[in-house]
Amino acid sequence: MSTRQPYARPSIEMAHGSGGKRSRELTDELFLAHFGADGASPELARLDDQARFDLAPLLALGDRLALTTDSFVVTPLFFRGGDIGRLAVHGTVNDLAVGGALPRYLTCGFILEEGLATETLERVVVSMAAAAREAEVEIVAGDTKVVPRGAADGLFINTAGVGVVPAAYRLDPRSIQPGDSILLSGTIGDHGAAVVDARGELALEIEIESDSMALHRLTAAMLAASPRIRCMRDATRGGLATVLNEFALSAGRRLDLREEAIPVREGVSGVCELLGLDPLYLANEGKLVAVVPAADADAVLAAMRARPEGRDAACIGEVSAGRGPAVVLRTTFGAERRVGLLVGDQLPRIC
Amino acid sequence: MSTRQPYARPSIEMAHGSGGKRSRELTDELFLAHFGADGASPELARLDDQARFDLAPLLALGDRLALTTDSFVVTPLFFRGGDIGRLAVHGTVNDLAVGGALPRYLTCGFILEEGLATETLERVVVSMAAAAREAEVEIVAGDTKVVPRGAADGLFINTAGVGVVPAAYRLDPRSIQPGDSILLSGTIGDHGAAVVDARGELALEIEIESDSMALHRLTAAMLAASPRIRCMRDATRGGLATVLNEFALSAGRRLDLREEAIPVREGVSGVCELLGLDPLYLANEGKLVAVVPAADADAVLAAMRARPEGRDAACIGEVSAGRGPAVVLRTTFGAERRVGLLVGDQLPRIC
Repeated sequence: MSTRQPYARPSIEMAHGSGGKRSRELTDELFLAHFGADGASPELARLDDQARFDLAPLLALGDRLALTTDSFVVTPLFFRGGDIGRLAVHGTVNDLAVGGALPRYLTCGFILEEGLATETLERVVVSMAAAAREAEVEIVAGDTKVVPRGAADGLFINTAGVGVVPAAYRLDPRSIQPGDSILLSGTIGDHGAAVVDARGELALEIEIESDSMALHRLTAAMLAASPRIRCMRDATRGGLATVLNEFALSAGRRLDLREEAIPVREGVSGVCELLGLDPLYLANEGKLVAVVPAADADAVLAAMRARPEGRDAACIGEVSAGRGPAVVLRTTFGAERRVGLLVGDQLPRIC
Repeated sequence: MSTRQPYARPSIEMAHGSGGKRSRELTDELFLAHFGADGASPELARLDDQARFDLAPLLALGDRLALTTDSFVVTPLFFRGGDIGRLAVHGTVNDLAVGGALPRYLTCGFILEEGLATETLERVVVSMAAAAREAEVEIVAGDTKVVPRGAADGLFINTAGVGVVPAAYRLDPRSIQPGDSILLSGTIGDHGAAVVDARGELALEIEIESDSMALHRLTAAMLAASPRIRCMRDATRGGLATVLNEFALSAGRRLDLREEAIPVREGVSGVCELLGLDPLYLANEGKLVAVVPAADADAVLAAMRARPEGRDAACIGEVSAGRGPAVVLRTTFGAERRVGLLVGDQLPRIC
């Protein structure tokens, strides 16, 4: 929390969404106090219907603009290692970063339930502002709606993001080739397991933290090591298995994975065994998968390991010349197991 | 509705938000069917985490980028003259347009309640796709979350928008000067009254239609008539009174209005009398207010009236040399009434 006075009203009222006096008060005393002054966004502080900025100084010849959006409905709002506000910044920053973009600007839309404690909202906003500062992105436009008690569950956030993709990068899973290496930036399932833990349904002995973090510095280091990286994606909802299936489907290729190469923390394995979950499908909020020409794999892996976000990075498999699309896991015991798209929903409201 | 087969599953399941097989199915068979193929967005169809596009051909020297966001929680989802999907497109297009921007790209985030009829979702998506085509904006990135029954009310939408502001336009309410004319693009309160009507609490004899429409062609015509327009804003939530108060506060000026110059439809007046509402505070979704140097007012007004969106445009008042910030209405009977910011919330979930 910052050192300033917290917003004076105890809870969200319908009038906070009216567009009138109370809306203005919430914007001035809560949102702008954190996103405007501390967050140093003169654009947001203008309180206009839209933010405007010069992009020309940021764009070199052939650079492209990247645009993305994500909504966040995670429950509970706070968990070890993060909260809905950090997720909302990191999720959108990472969606930009894995496309090779340098994230620049975020918008932020809140849907609030009448009766929400403003202290809760302020904690989330403080956390978002800090996450945005850390990630060097500016929250330039926002919107708040309030719905009556029972019409939403506390607090939902949407973020949209704008970034700049340097002309040299043309990341596309359709460019995947047989022989390419599959790199993973660290342990899987930490976020999913941390949220399950925060729901209090388990009495875990090992503390599990969400991996919520911004990955744009990692992706920049990776692309500096090899601009020929085929594609990257962050393994959020649906987990590692979902991203690999998306790659396999886009490229029409078979991806072969080695189970023993995929890092999973002990606590996360424990949660999975207790609940019958598969860590391959568990959500992450600070992990990415990259497909890289084999010749460049060592250089990219070294660049990843040199950064804290990629300390536990590993090569987890290769693109096969065999018939695709398919994702196949060779287990520790030597068996082959087909890894499909997630059927059903193992953990609702994980992000 | 389009001629293609509707999406086969009858209602939204938690698995539609899993990121897995069912999510992919919803994306392919519902969202892409309307936004991708018909909506002709190759960027969306790539199903990547972000859309990427060349902005350079759109930007001239000194042009700026505009960015905005809005969430929509209107109830009911459908009303005479519109629905939540049209609002979600028009609201964001208009937030860009009133800043002088040419709207180009939208993102779209859905929060769906488990059990929502997919036929309802599809109607909304078809309507959004049509509104986007009409407004010549491209929906380039999207996201869908599903929450369990009772954790949201049916369907919420967030849109964020990107547009390009020509270098010549520097719209800013702080540039307002005494003597400037205040122009309004048409009748007020139609949207608010139409939603009240759709809630079925009244038995109205006169049919009222929402004014939901895109205003970017109107703003382009106005700026062509006078690039010296001080500022524009669309009078959505909080109505005309709220926009004028925002202008007065930003500029530190007093705005004088003539009540008889402000057009209100008979049906809207009727709803207001029945319910004790003030049309000045009623929401609009296709009306804007502009402050214009007096010398240019006739030219801008003529340009407005030449377009269907501005057919009923009127000069409703002037910026006073008197002490501000204030908004003062001279009533039809000659009395002066101070028009403040809305206190409380007269109509929740109006947009």
